[in-house]
Amino acid sequence: MVALTLNDPVVQSYIVYTAILALKMLAMSPMTATMRVMRGVFANPEDAKAGKGKVKFDDPIVERIRRAHLNDLENIPAFWVLAALYVTTGPAAAWATLLFRVFTVARIIYTIVYAIIPIPPPARGIAYVVALTVNFYMSVQVILYYITAI
Amino acid sequence: MVALTLNDPVVQSYIVYTAILALKMLAMSPMTATMRVMRGVFANPEDAKAGKGKVKFDDPIVERIRRAHLNDLENIPAFWVLAALYVTTGPAAAWATLLFRVFTVARIIYTIVYAIIPIPPPARGIAYVVALTVNFYMSVQVILYYITAI
Amino acid sequence: MVALTLNDPVVQSYIVYTAILALKMLAMSPMTATMRVMRGVFANPEDAKAGKGKVKFDDPIVERIRRAHLNDLENIPAFWVLAALYVTTGPAAAWATLLFRVFTVARIIYTIVYAIIPIPPPARGIAYVVALTVNFYMSVQVILYYITAI
Repeated sequence: MVALTLNDPVVQSYIVYTAILALKMLAMSPMTATMRVMRGVFANPEDAKAGKGKVKFDDPIVERIRRAHLNDLENIPAFWVLAALYVTTGPAAAWATLLFRVFTVARIIYTIVYAIIPIPPPARGIAYVVALTVNFYMSVQVILYYITAI
Repeated sequence: MVALTLNDPVVQSYIVYTAILALKMLAMSPMTATMRVMRGVFANPEDAKAGKGKVKFDDPIVERIRRAHLNDLENIPAFWVLAALYVTTGPAAAWATLLFRVFTVARIIYTIVYAIIPIPPPARGIAYVVALTVNFYMSVQVILYYITAI
Repeated sequence: MVALTLNDPVVQSYIVYTAILALKMLAMSPMTATMRVMRGVFANPEDAKAGKGKVKFDDPIVERIRRAHLNDLENIPAFWVLAALYVTTGPAAAWATLLFRVFTVARIIYTIVYAIIPIPPPARGIAYVVALTVNFYMSVQVILYYITAI
């Protein structure tokens, strides 16, 4: 059995990258709200009235940010749980930390090229696939390690 | 290093508020389903046929509940992981418990004023910002505490 | 207090089913991407250009997969946290493992009958309610166990 404590470098690495990813994901909310106010497009009639705008669900800028945010929801919580479980399989600390860094950087790049400075393909696709590959890799490693408990 | 056990008041507080938030979030699903049946608006042709309704994606009541639910997905799983990590930084138990209570109450108020009894702005916005602030605060505290592991 | 280690059968069972569910959920992303390319329907103008398709938000096949994916986001992360907390309440290992298996199988069936081989109601509804019931049950058990910490 792997014995883990909060002093472990790999545990601390997991914690700090998880918190950075959470902060990044949470930042999408004020970004959407700011853009809604700036562009006067809202999802609810009462908001449109308060913001002197209109109800609109197809504003290209707002919807890009919302798609980037939804993509975060599809990938980042999965990282939070998979990376925690992966740490329990006793990976080399340097390798696990590298995976966490690569995932985090890929998701930050994904957000930038999707929602902030749109860059033509394939920048977003590469960032997306890199992060997804880390998640797939960790999930398979965890399943193989604990397969007897199925 | 902070040594944590399931006997810790702050750990138990984390667990109970996390479970309450999960229950609240899960409750959005039957709320949506009930409203779909009552109003005869469905997302799939086979459901519309079975429910003697029609396929419709812009019913104002159903879409309000769905937006409240999506907003839960954007904020509550982030709380689950951030609050757990925040506990490992050794906060004062009373302060951490207060944060968990404030977040939980704010998200319950958010749901009520968004999806159940629509109240004019800024009630929903305040509840939303209060909960988001707790998440931002915890993420920054965690990052600062473990920054050397980056 | 329940003392838990990574050697516990119920902990290992939790880990393997959590990883299987993550893998299943992550698989929705390439499924959506593949279907977008095959059907030539994209969410962004730059993707449509690169894929020689068009921007379209109402393709019935792509939207079914997206709804199945969103439903995963509403239920699977809640399972990850609730099942972990439920394990700390010291359930019988065989019973907890049964719950994890039922949830996992129900979510896999849900995905198949929703996004892969559409089957008329109520197959999808039953799979959905079974998984939701497991989540509700675990959340109530956790709240009752830790209620004094509220």
